Amino acid sequence: MTPFVAPSLPSFSEVSAVLCLLLIFLVPFAGAGLALINSGLGRSRSAAHAMMGALCVAAVSALVYVVIGFAWQGVAARPDHALTIAGKSWGWIATEPFFLRGLRLDLSPSALIILLQMFSVALAGMIPLSSGSDRWRLGAICASTALLAGCTYPLFAHWAWGGGWLAQLGLNSGLGRGFVDGGGSGTIQVVGGVTALAITWILGPRRGKFSAEGMPAALPGHNVVLVLLGCVFAGIGWIGLNSAGAMLFLSVEPGRVVLIAIDTTLCAASSGLAAAVVTRVRFGRPDASLTANGWIAGLVASSAAAAFLKPAAAVIVGGVAGILVVLVADFLEFQLAIDDPGGAVSVHAVCGVWGVLGVALLGDAGVSVAGQWLAQLVGIATLLGFIFPLTYGLNWLLDRVYRQRVRREGELQGMDLFELGAGAYPEFDIHGDDLLQR
Amino acid sequence: MTPFVAPSLPSFSEVSAVLCLLLIFLVPFAGAGLALINSGLGRSRSAAHAMMGALCVAAVSALVYVVIGFAWQGVAARPDHALTIAGKSWGWIATEPFFLRGLRLDLSPSALIILLQMFSVALAGMIPLSSGSDRWRLGAICASTALLAGCTYPLFAHWAWGGGWLAQLGLNSGLGRGFVDGGGSGTIQVVGGVTALAITWILGPRRGKFSAEGMPAALPGHNVVLVLLGCVFAGIGWIGLNSAGAMLFLSVEPGRVVLIAIDTTLCAASSGLAAAVVTRVRFGRPDASLTANGWIAGLVASSAAAAFLKPAAAVIVGGVAGILVVLVADFLEFQLAIDDPGGAVSVHAVCGVWGVLGVALLGDAGVSVAGQWLAQLVGIATLLGFIFPLTYGLNWLLDRVYRQRVRREGELQGMDLFELGAGAYPEFDIHGDDLLQR
Amino acid sequence: MTPFVAPSLPSFSEVSAVLCLLLIFLVPFAGAGLALINSGLGRSRSAAHAMMGALCVAAVSALVYVVIGFAWQGVAARPDHALTIAGKSWGWIATEPFFLRGLRLDLSPSALIILLQMFSVALAGMIPLSSGSDRWRLGAICASTALLAGCTYPLFAHWAWGGGWLAQLGLNSGLGRGFVDGGGSGTIQVVGGVTALAITWILGPRRGKFSAEGMPAALPGHNVVLVLLGCVFAGIGWIGLNSAGAMLFLSVEPGRVVLIAIDTTLCAASSGLAAAVVTRVRFGRPDASLTANGWIAGLVASSAAAAFLKPAAAVIVGGVAGILVVLVADFLEFQLAIDDPGGAVSVHAVCGVWGVLGVALLGDAGVSVAGQWLAQLVGIATLLGFIFPLTYGLNWLLDRVYRQRVRREGELQGMDLFELGAGAYPEFDIHGDDLLQR
Repeated sequence: MTPFVAPSLPSFSEVSAVLCLLLIFLVPFAGAGLALINSGLGRSRSAAHAMMGALCVAAVSALVYVVIGFAWQGVAARPDHALTIAGKSWGWIATEPFFLRGLRLDLSPSALIILLQMFSVALAGMIPLSSGSDRWRLGAICASTALLAGCTYPLFAHWAWGGGWLAQLGLNSGLGRGFVDGGGSGTIQVVGGVTALAITWILGPRRGKFSAEGMPAALPGHNVVLVLLGCVFAGIGWIGLNSAGAMLFLSVEPGRVVLIAIDTTLCAASSGLAAAVVTRVRFGRPDASLTANGWIAGLVASSAAAAFLKPAAAVIVGGVAGILVVLVADFLEFQLAIDDPGGAVSVHAVCGVWGVLGVALLGDAGVSVAGQWLAQLVGIATLLGFIFPLTYGLNWLLDRVYRQRVRREGELQGMDLFELGAGAYPEFDIHGDDLLQR
Repeated sequence: MTPFVAPSLPSFSEVSAVLCLLLIFLVPFAGAGLALINSGLGRSRSAAHAMMGALCVAAVSALVYVVIGFAWQGVAARPDHALTIAGKSWGWIATEPFFLRGLRLDLSPSALIILLQMFSVALAGMIPLSSGSDRWRLGAICASTALLAGCTYPLFAHWAWGGGWLAQLGLNSGLGRGFVDGGGSGTIQVVGGVTALAITWILGPRRGKFSAEGMPAALPGHNVVLVLLGCVFAGIGWIGLNSAGAMLFLSVEPGRVVLIAIDTTLCAASSGLAAAVVTRVRFGRPDASLTANGWIAGLVASSAAAAFLKPAAAVIVGGVAGILVVLVADFLEFQLAIDDPGGAVSVHAVCGVWGVLGVALLGDAGVSVAGQWLAQLVGIATLLGFIFPLTYGLNWLLDRVYRQRVRREGELQGMDLFELGAGAYPEFDIHGDDLLQR
Repeated sequence: MTPFVAPSLPSFSEVSAVLCLLLIFLVPFAGAGLALINSGLGRSRSAAHAMMGALCVAAVSALVYVVIGFAWQGVAARPDHALTIAGKSWGWIATEPFFLRGLRLDLSPSALIILLQMFSVALAGMIPLSSGSDRWRLGAICASTALLAGCTYPLFAHWAWGGGWLAQLGLNSGLGRGFVDGGGSGTIQVVGGVTALAITWILGPRRGKFSAEGMPAALPGHNVVLVLLGCVFAGIGWIGLNSAGAMLFLSVEPGRVVLIAIDTTLCAASSGLAAAVVTRVRFGRPDASLTANGWIAGLVASSAAAAFLKPAAAVIVGGVAGILVVLVADFLEFQLAIDDPGGAVSVHAVCGVWGVLGVALLGDAGVSVAGQWLAQLVGIATLLGFIFPLTYGLNWLLDRVYRQRVRREGELQGMDLFELGAGAYPEFDIHGDDLLQR
């Protein structure tokens, strides 16, 4: 925990490696949680499509990441392509073999990183799904996920977690420990969140979302029980994610996992309650969907710093996230006319940025605070100033080649019937839109 | 395993601590299971409210427990407030710091206890939820949960698990090993179950539950698939709960976890089947909801003694629980006119008591059986004679300050629309009550 | 890993045993996944029955396996009943005590095998459930599961995993390492899959499935969201299953678990995508139910060889499974007029056979390939030539004693109302069949 450390891999005892491995196996529950939330917040006529999208994201991202993504992400303390600037070497892309050829897949930290990343790139890929609800074609979902898993994600992950230039800010420039992001508030959540923003802009709002005068209509989620169930699974998955990430990327000792689990839970709890209170105050009643979004926002914000927060600080990080997520969701919808059905931008991008800042603001990492602030800000600037344009550009190009938004009939008919040929609930009577409770 | 032991913390190797930590991470699945069962057994017009209640219980109990609950629960072999009676010192409340300040949150047994308890107090808090279905206000749920997590639960948990007077019955009075309750049949389930009883009494029955002549009407759960799915998750979570509890509070060696998992599964299996057979005999058809209740009752009954039961004894413990749960549910409804929609009193209070007795009756703990019987009975007497009045009194006082039952319109309209402003399934056509299959 | 090894138990360090134990606790999620898929692929009027069937399978199989199943399965390197043929001893049935009496239930490999098998026999039992959807009586489900857990399954499992004659093919006849099936592509999936085939034949097709001219009608699943959610849980459970199985039955070192997890995920991913592409090509649109079946087929195929496949080979195993599952499902329905609502025969039997072959075709086990081919083929021949007739015969006999198919009224009314007395969704409006989207 000394400052100005070189990026390195942890050296694990067998017990630590086994702990880390089993924590990684909790991560898919986070994916299950996000998939449920996406599907539940969308319309019933797109519910199967939403789950099918999640399964395709999981499948495509695992395949693409194994084939090329990891080759470009790599791990710390291994040779990479580096630029020499001001006499220092700055890594920008890894040079591992494609398709994991020749790599030892055992309990070594680098093999564990591959496994964790195979799951967490899927998590990042599920974030834009919820922004694209009810209008994003399945083929485009697969192609866009391939771009994320094969290019955007590994690039930033190399910089932050693979020993690249953001991680080197500590050693090279004396900025604290370099960019610190244990569980991926930036590397997973903001990367996914800015991709979600790009997707909402490229797709445009759902039909009927904004009136001719630009007033947004509420389109309630079709199954709030699934949404809230998803929160519980996400909480379990995030404990695994934050713990395994901190062990592998910050070399924290196994004992910290207890603190991480407590902090992660407290963050989610205070964020969910804060969102409930804020919606109660604003709308007269607590809003279940926004409370769920608050819960997830707390998890997102907890990721970067959970290993370094005192429990009381975790409550603060969560509380702020819960307030932020409601205010920003409103701002995006009313002021910027962005139609983000699942709130992915406010939950994952905005609260991810907040989580990254939390490391410097409230973290207890025992390093020069000013330097750490700067390292975190450089990371955020890179996410917003480089990764966002990159993912926007890639998805814009994809849209030229293969239109990402479904045709008009598809949207009127519902994604399930139009793209999959069958509804999610073929035996249930469903209201027409005019009867929707609003 | 010698008799007349002083309450103590286990001394864990690193491997044991890691095992225990990972077992604790299974516990939230028990919460997910109970939440699904609550929501599925309730009405569709309160389904989102039921899940929202569960999420709020999880959030409030984690926060309150961390802030004050643990301070009063504490762990064994640490200084506490004690009364000296007959020359012996009897601990009644712990004196740990609020907000976990200054505590080491690592792989030590006391830190693992904090983590386990943060999850299991939420489990206890979910029990009354199912008794209050369709009429308990969200604000009251949060306040009542705070009383449970901040007062009732930690008090009894100090006595049973924190080295307090019930645990000291072995050393101080020669009563076997003192009160034994590995996974919380008493400390979690009965505490939650008597709170559920208090809540049903304070709230009163649902409108339409009892006719003018006092005959109860069947109000079937709105989604039996979720109810039965919840059973599977609960089973997984309970394995973690029973194992981690036995390791931390009974100092069993890690190898016992295999026995505990087998016993827990056998208990649930035989209890579920017993409930199916009993309802088949009584009503001509096996009842799915009561079979689910039987499954959970088996888990509840398994908790106290799973570490000390031979597999055949586990089958007996479960079978009895499955019969009890059906008979008692009927008795409460028809004889006492208690409206407990999810059956929380029969499942958690009654079968929890049965589980506590099972330690003395069938357990294999190698101690003076008569003394152990007495210790278990003293524990049960305390739960029914002290904890029940306490939780009733606290909730009665709360009801004076903040009415716990929703207003009449709320109940007619459904909790979702009235309290949350939106239904759980806004796109689905729902029957009026008159068309309900009964 | 030398060839021609005698069947033996692994010798675990404490860390390995703890890892294996915790992996086993993931297996019930596979059961939850299959239960969700079964229920979602069936009709809404049988949805509670499907879940109730799954819970009963879990309960009955755990009880029966503990009481008699394990006694006949046993573990390697312990005395069993053996036949001496050509001067070699060939084990055919184990001789362990009933009800686990006197066995040490701790972290020893044999105790871990008992625990794993208690869960995986339930998995095998859930496979026929999906073939019998909408017409298989609950009592018959329980009885048939008892036959599986008490006879068919333990018999083959003794041969393959308990040191019996299939495992001895390596040492006795020089056939590679003997029959190799790490996670149960044959021992769990094919055994379940051929039982499913027997059940479909004994029950006959659902009313309305085939027209007078023999043309099958599509009867879409009632809840595709649950089906796809089930895939995620199955994926998590299968990682546990494949890893624990390989550790216990193939003595692989703990480090292989990382490879197994990557291979399992890649298999599911490529199989799911392959099924989506094949249905897209054949029907113009990707089919969500068949994609889910493809995902599960990939998991099924991964089980036998996951510990020995390079990642690229895992992608091939999965891709072939995904193509097979669609083509075979069509063939069974159109050519053989088999009504298998959940596709259990193509998913579990056919892709299970493919997984068993994969060991010889693509596995990297470092043994004489010709001998290994022969060992795998002998295993498959035994499954199809002995276990299938055995399970058919047992279920045919059962059908004489206790008719397995529900009466005509039951099928018209729906299994939920007829057998359980209440529907799964009593408050929702459900279409009549004539309005079903097809």
